[in-house]
Amino acid sequence: MTAKPSQPVFTLTTGPVNCYPEVLSALGRPVYYDYDPAFLATYERISLKLKQAMETKNVPVILHGEPVLALEAVGISVVGKDDVLLNLASGVYGDGYRSWLEPHCREYLDIRVPFNEVVDPAAVEAKLKERPDITVVTVCHHDTPSGTINPVKEIGAIVAKTKAVFVVDAVSSFGGMDILPEEVFSDIFITGPNKCMGCPPGLSMLAISDKGWAKMKANPTAPRGSILSVLDWENAWRKETGFPFTPSVAEVNGLEAALDLYLDEGPQAVWARHALTAKACREGIKAMGLELWTASENFVSPTTTAVRLPEGVEEAELRQVMRDDYGVTISSGRGATLNKLVRIGHMGPTARPIYALVAVAALGAALTKVTGKAYDVGAGSAAVMAVIDTGK
Amino acid sequence: MTAKPSQPVFTLTTGPVNCYPEVLSALGRPVYYDYDPAFLATYERISLKLKQAMETKNVPVILHGEPVLALEAVGISVVGKDDVLLNLASGVYGDGYRSWLEPHCREYLDIRVPFNEVVDPAAVEAKLKERPDITVVTVCHHDTPSGTINPVKEIGAIVAKTKAVFVVDAVSSFGGMDILPEEVFSDIFITGPNKCMGCPPGLSMLAISDKGWAKMKANPTAPRGSILSVLDWENAWRKETGFPFTPSVAEVNGLEAALDLYLDEGPQAVWARHALTAKACREGIKAMGLELWTASENFVSPTTTAVRLPEGVEEAELRQVMRDDYGVTISSGRGATLNKLVRIGHMGPTARPIYALVAVAALGAALTKVTGKAYDVGAGSAAVMAVIDTGK
Amino acid sequence: MTAKPSQPVFTLTTGPVNCYPEVLSALGRPVYYDYDPAFLATYERISLKLKQAMETKNVPVILHGEPVLALEAVGISVVGKDDVLLNLASGVYGDGYRSWLEPHCREYLDIRVPFNEVVDPAAVEAKLKERPDITVVTVCHHDTPSGTINPVKEIGAIVAKTKAVFVVDAVSSFGGMDILPEEVFSDIFITGPNKCMGCPPGLSMLAISDKGWAKMKANPTAPRGSILSVLDWENAWRKETGFPFTPSVAEVNGLEAALDLYLDEGPQAVWARHALTAKACREGIKAMGLELWTASENFVSPTTTAVRLPEGVEEAELRQVMRDDYGVTISSGRGATLNKLVRIGHMGPTARPIYALVAVAALGAALTKVTGKAYDVGAGSAAVMAVIDTGK
Amino acid sequence: MTAKPSQPVFTLTTGPVNCYPEVLSALGRPVYYDYDPAFLATYERISLKLKQAMETKNVPVILHGEPVLALEAVGISVVGKDDVLLNLASGVYGDGYRSWLEPHCREYLDIRVPFNEVVDPAAVEAKLKERPDITVVTVCHHDTPSGTINPVKEIGAIVAKTKAVFVVDAVSSFGGMDILPEEVFSDIFITGPNKCMGCPPGLSMLAISDKGWAKMKANPTAPRGSILSVLDWENAWRKETGFPFTPSVAEVNGLEAALDLYLDEGPQAVWARHALTAKACREGIKAMGLELWTASENFVSPTTTAVRLPEGVEEAELRQVMRDDYGVTISSGRGATLNKLVRIGHMGPTARPIYALVAVAALGAALTKVTGKAYDVGAGSAAVMAVIDTGK
Repeated sequence: MTAKPSQPVFTLTTGPVNCYPEVLSALGRPVYYDYDPAFLATYERISLKLKQAMETKNVPVILHGEPVLALEAVGISVVGKDDVLLNLASGVYGDGYRSWLEPHCREYLDIRVPFNEVVDPAAVEAKLKERPDITVVTVCHHDTPSGTINPVKEIGAIVAKTKAVFVVDAVSSFGGMDILPEEVFSDIFITGPNKCMGCPPGLSMLAISDKGWAKMKANPTAPRGSILSVLDWENAWRKETGFPFTPSVAEVNGLEAALDLYLDEGPQAVWARHALTAKACREGIKAMGLELWTASENFVSPTTTAVRLPEGVEEAELRQVMRDDYGVTISSGRGATLNKLVRIGHMGPTARPIYALVAVAALGAALTKVTGKAYDVGAGSAAVMAVIDTGK
Repeated sequence: MTAKPSQPVFTLTTGPVNCYPEVLSALGRPVYYDYDPAFLATYERISLKLKQAMETKNVPVILHGEPVLALEAVGISVVGKDDVLLNLASGVYGDGYRSWLEPHCREYLDIRVPFNEVVDPAAVEAKLKERPDITVVTVCHHDTPSGTINPVKEIGAIVAKTKAVFVVDAVSSFGGMDILPEEVFSDIFITGPNKCMGCPPGLSMLAISDKGWAKMKANPTAPRGSILSVLDWENAWRKETGFPFTPSVAEVNGLEAALDLYLDEGPQAVWARHALTAKACREGIKAMGLELWTASENFVSPTTTAVRLPEGVEEAELRQVMRDDYGVTISSGRGATLNKLVRIGHMGPTARPIYALVAVAALGAALTKVTGKAYDVGAGSAAVMAVIDTGK
Repeated sequence: MTAKPSQPVFTLTTGPVNCYPEVLSALGRPVYYDYDPAFLATYERISLKLKQAMETKNVPVILHGEPVLALEAVGISVVGKDDVLLNLASGVYGDGYRSWLEPHCREYLDIRVPFNEVVDPAAVEAKLKERPDITVVTVCHHDTPSGTINPVKEIGAIVAKTKAVFVVDAVSSFGGMDILPEEVFSDIFITGPNKCMGCPPGLSMLAISDKGWAKMKANPTAPRGSILSVLDWENAWRKETGFPFTPSVAEVNGLEAALDLYLDEGPQAVWARHALTAKACREGIKAMGLELWTASENFVSPTTTAVRLPEGVEEAELRQVMRDDYGVTISSGRGATLNKLVRIGHMGPTARPIYALVAVAALGAALTKVTGKAYDVGAGSAAVMAVIDTGK
Repeated sequence: MTAKPSQPVFTLTTGPVNCYPEVLSALGRPVYYDYDPAFLATYERISLKLKQAMETKNVPVILHGEPVLALEAVGISVVGKDDVLLNLASGVYGDGYRSWLEPHCREYLDIRVPFNEVVDPAAVEAKLKERPDITVVTVCHHDTPSGTINPVKEIGAIVAKTKAVFVVDAVSSFGGMDILPEEVFSDIFITGPNKCMGCPPGLSMLAISDKGWAKMKANPTAPRGSILSVLDWENAWRKETGFPFTPSVAEVNGLEAALDLYLDEGPQAVWARHALTAKACREGIKAMGLELWTASENFVSPTTTAVRLPEGVEEAELRQVMRDDYGVTISSGRGATLNKLVRIGHMGPTARPIYALVAVAALGAALTKVTGKAYDVGAGSAAVMAVIDTGK
């Protein structure tokens, strides 16, 4: 008999994730009036740190809602009734973006691939040649419900040769791997601090190129005076400017702590521990005879490991056993991937290789219980440790 | 020579306000996955505490953005193309609500009064008789930029006799005075935790009557699948249900601490200290020969004291002196009241009578510096203390 | 290449331990003047919660230094120049207590056993018969450097039949297993919140029987007006009384959070998860072919697992590999057990079975590296998970 | 009717004091094993910051108990049976130090002055000439129960010419005014973070000269292996060394935040705001017709303002009214000054001039209530603000 903990021991999900202790601490900093000189200076300083982290020419924009706000706001701000839009859909999130794009455009086009595959840049190139009137291309970099990574740099290089603006959703990959707005030729790059940056959900971050700003400004239906406005925030980072509405002061304080950690540790080091954790996890999974969801490890995510569910396993039951018996919470699939896979997150504070051990052993042990078939937890654990050793 | 503190000593603004220490502490609680049983249970428990605090039949809705999100979302969710809308505008916020209402309705009507007055219920009654086709009535209870309190209970009783739904913006009054959704016959009651509840900005709270829900459900243009959707959140509070998108976990944890404090201290006691603080502040202000902004103390706010600026005083200069020389941050006016008044907030943790002393003395001393005319800080301070003594 | 984390990922030591998040949060509560009515009431309330947790008749005493203070203070407060003292020494701590006992007494006697054994109650009985002039018996319940548990209840029952007072050091066992002051017939029971209660080091807690108080009061050399005084604190818990000197306000606030957690979860449940974690750890250790330090599992600690180092292994090197390569910090031996064993703590927040997996796998992998011999991490991990499954 | 707050609104005491928010936050940092490389490095880094703040040649020692521990430990560590000791007693604390000095020395001498006076350096010089066998001179720099500042620099220059070691208790002055160990020729300088540094009580800090170390090392009765040992901690700051016993990890983390704040703001700036706050407070007190306790403002403390109680006023009643009616907690006298004065602290975060307003107005209003005689709160408040204006 062991107590079922009322709280999880380990949260190894794809978000919301555990926060860094420094972030949790920063959330409790004194809350100042948003127009107090102290907060205005803080906001500018954080925006500049964000610029440094995102390595952009323009100062990024912070929006005051979790990334679904940014995705919807970008959709309505960028896309107008004259636009021809190409959405690259390789997963539930990329495909689902349609609902915030199609209503605003003249014509909605997409390239869809199976949700365990990624988009082929050649297909994008062909489509853009076929339809030179395309004005907006959208893609989800890391389609979290599949754990796949689209080749956005290659795609971006192709889009950049056209008039189209390139919108990249990098919500769950930025900060956890080598993905930077300007390196991938994005015009609007959407991310948030609540995944690989180790913050709670509540903010979004946008890196916008000159071409991106121009596109939104030229869009007559881009909102102003709305929570969905991106344009209103263009200069909000400057301490001399005001805010369109009250920013989320505590979340902003938390973001500063996350940026400090990220810049202090160094992006390369942060990415490396995400990658190693994911690799350790994958090898552990495979050593237990389980399959990865992704069709190839060439485009597997370093921040999420999606594990294909064995025939007949109910994800809800499996995850409940992991939670109740071992204290480990992981993520289910979403939409089309629901009940086809489970997902282990490697994001921010949990992107430490040793967490892969916990995830693998708990998953194997829970599957053994749920299926009655023995999954080799020992082999999985040993494989995890062996990968960690390669990382030294 | 004294150091100019880089941080304010006292934040006596109308929001964002200082948070209760318990709230700051709660913001740093571990962040769990939103679908973890622990968080689902937390969310339901908090929603039920909110129901208790708001004394409603239906469980209130939490939206995951500061109250401008709720105001815009309610506007678009309630008002459709067949609606005739009556907006009661006695200040910058009430009047400004027009921008989120008028675009959606068939006809926009309003009753406007000077921004230091409040709306006369008789005028509302007359208008509703004149225009029985009015389907929505909106009002800002506490028009913060003016520090005035509209007689929403009287107005609500009138509206309740018609078919119209009654939308009340009580963002900066709920939790600081005797204002409850059902007592004022509201159908949609909008507030937030970042004023009198002593939380940081980042959430909104909505109390919605059956009539209010029915109106939104009957509105064909009420958004779904959007940050602006209210309908999507109807059942999100239930631990068996999901969330339309990721809730702001840390802010929600902070809200729980605020609700615990509020319910433990008792609403009556909380309201009483807001009222006494405001009264002490007003008497201090008047004792220095200054004028209140409001035309009458009959409708003055217990959570905000608006002080008319003496002729020729620049609010920015005045507030800067208060901040630099005494460490006290207060609020300016907004829009039409900008540079006509300054505002002292009495909200949540600063709704303690002794804070009125700080505000009054700092204001008097700063005015003396800025104008060269002597404001009697001693008389102001003494008046504050005298009022506090009446409160025992 | 993976980054060597500048901070440990897991602290699985025998103390200082990771604190519960609620404790860390409570440390940051506002610090009040110690004589403010709010703090006086807090101190009394906490003292009474401590009484509840320790299940004692008298209100326990809090001393304001980590448990070495309490051990030294008890030594000098209890033992006077007429005392004949019997110290039961089965480990480094028990044996080391001599230095704070012998200088004060007329005659120092001890029963010493090898440091991987425990004291035999029959030997105590014999000694007490042989020397009826013994006035004080001291024992370390859980000799942490050995991970052994002395049979204090049996010993206490024997001592209770004599005139001797029975002093029990339960610093690292109270709160993690079935050990209560009155159940073991102790007169002075010394513990601290910084082990199984999940607090930081900085306080001690003493449960003192009437006989214990009488003994100290009768001791002419028991200090007063000193940091080493126990007597000064007898009534400090009462809100009407004062403090001999300023208490550690923040630590006291942290202790309250720990007591709340402990009482809410229920001692039985807390003890059960300590026991299961330790058992899982032991089985994992043994499955890798390692030996426990303790001569028998009959008296092995549920809060510390001591692992005998294989021949030729340097503990410092081993622990460094665990820390650098896997992010796991564990404890070394102390004094006579140094470099003979390493220790894994299961205390407070780390007394969750899944942590045993982390400790076992990291230990096995590190030993493999350090020795060049393969330790079967997979077998160890599987054994851990198997034990956890027995606990459901 | 206003609620009697269960918690004080303002803690304007002479300690424990309100902590800086950054300190409260730091107390909640993760607690690491004391021998973890991360904590060893932290401890060394903090010790070096402390050296910088104290401007000493030798690295200061941190003791893990509030300053009474340090005072007692220094007494027993420095003073041996051959010592002739001169204690300079100008207040309750200085005089009271006798109890920890006299028992250890060959001969105890003192110079006592009335407790609202300070020690005359000439008297010290005379005494040292008369008794060249004096080996230790002790003095309390800021005798907090009187709010007086002894001329330790002048005294130190005199002692430095003799063989005697000079022990200075600067517990409640260091960090709040211009007092540095080497500037005052001290050999042992005792202070703590829980007064002007804005930390909670729980640690002490000692700056020790070479002569001071030599004296303790030469003292055969200086304790080792005891909580009272200073010698044991000599090298504990080095990350290669160990700790005599477990340090108070959380308090140490808090101290780092305090040192960072102090060094960032700059000692001169910190001292200036302490001085201005005290001056504003004194002028406000006098403007209400009250008398300072100190015989002359030449030696009045910038960190504590002691106010002589008017005839017939009970301090307990007065302070209770201040607390109940205005939410302001101040300190009583101690020992010989109890019920003769009350004390207002200006320490750390409350050393901001505007706090003097709160203290003065609350004191005046409460005295009015308690005595029935009108104290001119307005005049007091105006005087406070006038002094603040001189500080710009």
